[in-house]
Order: sequence, then C-alpha cells, then structure tokens
Amino acid sequence: MTPSQRNPEDRPVAALLAPDIVALLDESPAAIAAETEEVHPADLADVAELLEHDQLQAFLTALGPARAADVLEYLDEELRTEFLEAITPRQAAALVSEMTPDDRADTLEEIDEEHADDILAEIPREARQETERLLSYEPDTAGGLMTTEFVSVSQDMTVESALENVRAVARSGKKEAMSAIYTTDVQGRVVGVMSLRELLAAPFGGKIGEIAWSEVVSVSPLADREEVARLIANYDLVAVPVVSESGHVMGVITVDDVIDAIQEEQTEDVQKLGGMEALDEPYSQIAFWRMIRKRAVWLSALFLGEMLTATALGAYQKEIDRQTVLALFLPLIISSGGNSGSQGTSLLIRALALREVTLRDWWRVAGREVMTGVTLGVILAIIGFVRIELWQAMASHGWSVLGVQIGHNYDLVAKNGQEILVAGQHHLLAVTVAFSLLGVVTFGTLVGSMLPFAMRKLGFDPANASAPFVATFVDVTGLIIYFNVAAHILLR
Amino acid sequence: MTPSQRNPEDRPVAALLAPDIVALLDESPAAIAAETEEVHPADLADVAELLEHDQLQAFLTALGPARAADVLEYLDEELRTEFLEAITPRQAAALVSEMTPDDRADTLEEIDEEHADDILAEIPREARQETERLLSYEPDTAGGLMTTEFVSVSQDMTVESALENVRAVARSGKKEAMSAIYTTDVQGRVVGVMSLRELLAAPFGGKIGEIAWSEVVSVSPLADREEVARLIANYDLVAVPVVSESGHVMGVITVDDVIDAIQEEQTEDVQKLGGMEALDEPYSQIAFWRMIRKRAVWLSALFLGEMLTATALGAYQKEIDRQTVLALFLPLIISSGGNSGSQGTSLLIRALALREVTLRDWWRVAGREVMTGVTLGVILAIIGFVRIELWQAMASHGWSVLGVQIGHNYDLVAKNGQEILVAGQHHLLAVTVAFSLLGVVTFGTLVGSMLPFAMRKLGFDPANASAPFVATFVDVTGLIIYFNVAAHILLR
Repeated sequence: MTPSQRNPEDRPVAALLAPDIVALLDESPAAIAAETEEVHPADLADVAELLEHDQLQAFLTALGPARAADVLEYLDEELRTEFLEAITPRQAAALVSEMTPDDRADTLEEIDEEHADDILAEIPREARQETERLLSYEPDTAGGLMTTEFVSVSQDMTVESALENVRAVARSGKKEAMSAIYTTDVQGRVVGVMSLRELLAAPFGGKIGEIAWSEVVSVSPLADREEVARLIANYDLVAVPVVSESGHVMGVITVDDVIDAIQEEQTEDVQKLGGMEALDEPYSQIAFWRMIRKRAVWLSALFLGEMLTATALGAYQKEIDRQTVLALFLPLIISSGGNSGSQGTSLLIRALALREVTLRDWWRVAGREVMTGVTLGVILAIIGFVRIELWQAMASHGWSVLGVQIGHNYDLVAKNGQEILVAGQHHLLAVTVAFSLLGVVTFGTLVGSMLPFAMRKLGFDPANASAPFVATFVDVTGLIIYFNVAAHILLR
Repeated sequence: MTPSQRNPEDRPVAALLAPDIVALLDESPAAIAAETEEVHPADLADVAELLEHDQLQAFLTALGPARAADVLEYLDEELRTEFLEAITPRQAAALVSEMTPDDRADTLEEIDEEHADDILAEIPREARQETERLLSYEPDTAGGLMTTEFVSVSQDMTVESALENVRAVARSGKKEAMSAIYTTDVQGRVVGVMSLRELLAAPFGGKIGEIAWSEVVSVSPLADREEVARLIANYDLVAVPVVSESGHVMGVITVDDVIDAIQEEQTEDVQKLGGMEALDEPYSQIAFWRMIRKRAVWLSALFLGEMLTATALGAYQKEIDRQTVLALFLPLIISSGGNSGSQGTSLLIRALALREVTLRDWWRVAGREVMTGVTLGVILAIIGFVRIELWQAMASHGWSVLGVQIGHNYDLVAKNGQEILVAGQHHLLAVTVAFSLLGVVTFGTLVGSMLPFAMRKLGFDPANASAPFVATFVDVTGLIIYFNVAAHILLR
C-alpha cells in the first residue's frame, strides 16, 4: 500500500502535528527538524499532504535532505512527482540521492522522462548508473523491486570481524538492507545466508561460513513479483536475494516492498474480477476520463458479447410468440448460470494463484466441478419447480396477502392473442424450468471453473477471467439450453 | 499462504531430497538430522508430505523435537492435525512445546478439542497458561496473531548491557521475535522501540532510552487483522507490538504472520466477490459436501432474489404478448446493468479496504459514479442503437454472409398471432433500447458502488457485496426500467 492510498481523515497523528508545524514554518523553521525528530516519516508525509504547496517546499527544506527524502518516500505519488518536477533538477537530485536505490528508481519512473533525465544527470555517476540499471527492469519483476545496497561478507571471515563489518555499515547511516547477511566465496558468488540475529548469537572465533545456512532461497531478476511473494510467504523470509545466472547477488528484495506488491496485485485482481481493466492508481486520485476508459473498454466488449443473446433470442422469437410465459423465466435461468460460473471462476483464480492446483490438475478439477454443478443444479431445480407449482396453487386458490392477490396462473396460455386456460400446462413449465436450471448451472459451473485454466494456458493471468465475462459467455449458451429444453417439454 | 496451499509438483527441493531420506530411514535414521541440517524446514515439510504415514513419524522422530516442531509449523494443516491426534498426548506435547507460542496456539486450535485439552495438560504450566490466553482471542484479531515471546529492555539500561541482553536471548536458542526491541519504563510500560540494526549502530556508553524511537506504532489485542496489515504496510514495519490498555506489551505480531493473513484475506475477498461463502480451507482439500454448502447457500439466496424477475415480468406479460421483440433485448439490457454494477462494487470494495475512501466520502463517490454511469450508459446506448438500426438495414437489403442471411427485421410486429409489417417501428425499438441502457447502466453503477458503503455502514465487511449479488439486485430494477421506457416509447 502506498501512503497515497490513505485518507487524510484517517491520520490522527498528522492532524495533531500539522497546526504546530504550520506555526513553526512562520516563526522558526529551523526548529522543525528537532521538533519532528522522533516522528515516523510516514506521519510527516501525512502532514506534508495537508500543507499548501509553498509550505510543502519550506517544510521539506527545513527537514534537511536526508529526512526530506524519507518523507518523500512515503508521500502521495502524484504530489511527490509534482513537487520534484517543480523544483530545479539539482535540488531534486539532492533529495533523490538520499533515497535507497529502489525507491530512487521508483520515484524517477513516475516523473516525466525529460525531467527524470535532467535529475539523473545531476546525480553522482555511480548512483546514476545503478539507478539506470534498476530502471531497465519492469516494475513488477524481481529486478524492479530490488534494492542494490545490501550486506555481504566473505565466508572465510571470522565472526568478530563480520560483526564489526556489519556494525560499521549500520553506523554509516546508509540504508543497506540488513535483515539478512549473505556470505560469498572467493569469486564473489553467494554461498550462504544468515540473519542478523544468527550473527549476534554466533560464538566468537568461528568462521562465518560455518554459521551461515548453505541453502539460499533466491530469485532471478526477471521473476514475477507474484513468484517473489510466494517465496517470501512460503519460507517466512524477511528478504530474498536476486541472484544473477553467474551466482552473484545483484540486489535484495525486502519484505515491506513485497507487501506493497501483494496489495497492488490484490487490487488488480479484484478490479479485473469485477470486469474492468486494473486502474493502476488509487480510485480517489484517478482522472475521470482515464477511469471511464478503463471501465468502458471491458463494458463495451461484454456488451458486444451479450448482443449474441439478442441474436439467439431472435431465432426463438416464434417460440416466445407461442408461449410468452417462457420469457418470464429467462432472466432467472440465465443469471443462475452466470452466478454459478462466477463462483467457479473466483475459486479457481485463487487456487491457481496460490498454486493449490496447477494446469496439470484441470482434468481432475473439471470432474469435480461437473459433480458440483449437477448437485447445485438439482438444488436450484427443486427450488424453481416448487416455486412455479406453489405460485400456481396460490393463484388457483385465490390467495391474497393484505388484499393483494399473490401467485400467478401459469396455465394461461397466449394463443392468437387470447388467453386460453390449458389445465396442467404449468406442470410442463415447471419441469422445463427445472431441467433448464440443471443444465445451465452444470454448464455455468464447468465453464466458470475452466476459464481460469484456459487463461493460464493461453499465457494470460487467470485473474482476467472476470465474473461478468463468465456471465456473458454463459448467458448465450444458457438461453439456448433453455429453449431447447422447452422445445422438448413445453412446446412439443 | 500456508505450506498446504502449495502443489507437490511445485517442490523441486523436496522431490530431490525425498528419495535420499526414504533410503536413510531404512538404513540409518540417526544420520537424518545431520544430513538435513542445512535444509529449510519448509522444504523438509514438503518432503514429509511425500512420505507414507509410518515413515512420517520415523522421520520426525529422527529429526529430534526442536527441528520436528519447525517442520510441523510448515506442514500441511490437515496432515499436522492428523499426525498430532495419532501420537500420544505426551509425544504431541513434547513437539508443540518447541513451537513459538503463536504457532502452538494455531496448531492446537485446529486439533479436536478433547485431544487439544489432553495435549495442553502435558505442557509445562506457564506455557499452558500462555497458550490458553492466546487461544482466547479470535484467530483473525491482533491477539490471535501475536506471539508472546519478544525482547524488551529497560530504557535506563546502557547500550552495552542491552546488546549483551539481546545477544544472550539470541544464544538461548529460544524463538523470541527480535526484529524490533521495545524499551520500557519502571512500570514496565512500553515507551520506545528500536531495530536490532539501530542497537548495533548505537555508540557504547549511552542510555538505551536515548537511542530508541519514542513514537511506537502499536495495536490493541482486539484489532482486526486488516488493521494490523494496514499499519505494517503504511509504516514499513517488520513487527508491530500488541499493547494493553495499561500500556504494557502483550505480544508482537511479525511480518510473516501478517503476509499469511493478507493472503487469506485476499482469498476470502475474491471468493466472496464471486458470490459464495469463503471456503476457509484450500480448494484442493475441502470436502465435497462442505464446499457444496458454502456455494449452495449463496447460490440459492441469489436464486430466490432473482425470482423477483419472474414476478416482475409476470406483471409485464401483456406487454411481451403485444411486442415479443421486447423479450429479445431483455438479457442484453439487464446484464449491462449487472456488469456496470459489478465494476462499481469491485472498485469500491478495494478503495474502502485500502482506506482510499471512507464512509464519509459516500456522497462524493455517489456523485462521481452517477457521472460515470451516465457516461458509460451513453456509450452503450449508442452501440445498442447502432446495432438495431444496422441489423434492420442489413435485413431490409437482404445481406448475406456465406449464403446465410444476416440482420433481423424488427419492423415485424406480432399482432393476433400474425406478423404485420409496421414501417419505422424499429426506430422506436432502437430508441427504447438506448434509453433503457442509459437508465439501467446509470442505476447499476450507482447501486454497485454504494453497496460496499451500505455493507460497511451496517457493520459488515464491504467484500460481502458480491458481483452476483449486485447483478441480481440490478436485474429486477433493470427490467422495470426497461418496460417503463418501452411503455412510453414503443408501446404508446
């Protein structure tokens, strides 16, 4: 979750602090740094978001570059971009130079390219090259998530000197990832890993290579962020190293960045499941027309697909003419197919994402879902059958509630524009609806559960199989099933 | 993600190791502990899942209780429960005693109550009371997630003695959470926090209270796990302390448990959004009838709701009799309302979960979504209008593709069972469909986006506003809109 995704009204710390800081900005800006020394940068970012534009610059200047860089990392993305584009490239470079390499790259990625290049040009050469290398990776890969500053020690070092090394890095004030310490061989390839805690616990005098774990869980720089999240979750890691083909550690992905990635992934999945493109920015901030585009594309595509229902129904217009009562149950039947499909889809999207099932299991899942579909179909068929018989019985007995007659006489059949009572016709209608429900729910469940597999097979994210997509697909086939069942039972 | 949610075929390490371990079990079980010393317990758990039942017990015995407890923590939930219920309470107690308090509580919670009580009775008194206290909290609250073993030091301590303290704890081999160290005042109340790194970097000679941060982000034991996840994500924490009303640290929630909680929450949200109860266990493991129940309850409820469409259509049966062509566009129109509602719902579920918007914003969101609905409605109305006019034109010109006539003559109106050509009627139909789409999409978008707010207002999780639920709700109103528009335009 980026800080920008929080609502100003949910920031009690910031609401308390902001008036004091505004007062200090007028009276003695020099006192601000000392006053806010103990405050978490996330809270200072909240304060910054409550300030006027010119106050913001004065505030960040008063904090000094290192602290201001911390605050910028937590600041609303749009505000941060706007701010860094408004100041001179040299000022911006002074701020982003204080950031960790991964945050620096993320920050520059959002800035318009010309500005970013100007800022990069003002950054010391080594840091610039490092940033450019990080920018070359897709943001949702391991390379795009990693930071390049981490701690590694030679496996031949003694425990004391390794600890001294680590302590020196900690004291340097730099922001190396330090939750895991990697050990390397003479070629610099990673051969082991240990936690800071394990280093502290290690008896003095031993070699560091004897204490480190030789099984290092790592990822390639091109690994997807979902894969990184899976490893971190499975092995309860606080960091995972990104290792090159030659076996060298290129960077480290820390758990806080993975949590952000998981949250973003979740938002994308839910939005896609709702039948739209992922917004990729907070709902409260996205521009109106950009959001319309993300929603209209899918909505129109679904609409075009759903038009097939009008075409299919056109073919059955004669049947509807003969028995308009068929139209009454049309939405009920096709929506039941869509609903059961939506259940299957959401179940399998998650099961595939969590690797509970893989592509190889599709056959087993298909069998299980057919059984499920038949069972659910029988349940709805019984409810549907009872509903029609009950309404008919209530109508024939003239039942009423609060003076309003309830029930419906389905024995009334339209023929040449006149209603003719055909006794027992409603039984055929009830049977038609029941068998249609059985067929539609079974089909919907099967299609809904298989679609995520098909997506994965075709190389797409299974999350693209949205509930409305399944519903649209099932609607067309659902009404074909319905009218074919009707042709054999009601319209014989 | 619990290890049980991974597929055996995705476990390369385990697949390599398992044959060696099976061979060792036969030949020299005593060598197993040394052979697997460097292997991550998550991988050993994967191996354990590939073993026969009697091999499993021999394997865990060979590892020794401490290591076996590690492996059990990563083992498939069902298998772990089965195993601990099969051995004697004393054997089980020896294993769970080696677990961290939070994992011990989680493990016992899954075991059937009688067995769990027997095992608890064999655990040393202090640990037993601690476990019982943890079991008293709901599993999805901060109290249910926390571990009670953590490191705190008095703020009056010197840096050297604090570091010595921490090193002693690290060397003790116990499993205290150590990523954050809390400082306390003379009453034992928490007054500060520092990372292990900050303690390492601190200059010797100073008091620990001068180094620690005085702003401690904490939660109450009753806080929801979503709240915990939000704090960890916002402040980039590796642990968050659970603090009592009196200001004492009761326990610590570590980031790995939060990741598991986020993943579970995500699975629940997606399943609910798909229109079913959350399964609460892996798809690949849940019993058939338990899954049917979770799906049938919602599917039947939606079906009962959708029955209102049959009732509403019953009231319009005369209109359908007069103009069966109206029935052709019924699924198209009501599904467009459902689809646009589903978009609004999924957007607002996430926006509320991430606190991008709060309950107070509902009015602002409603205004924006009405605008969105009108815009999307106009787009679909234009497509719908063009579709009808185009099909009519193609039919009148007798166009055909591959010998099949395409298009549809909507000027044919059924009257007393005979088709009468009413020129220009299709224009009225096209206008009816267009205006209905505008109304239905606007209404669907508004209802879909407001439903998550209503859920939160009523005290439910907004994620309960599922896509099928919205679709069902909008279907009924959609067809009322449609027939009312038709009454004013086509059926005048």
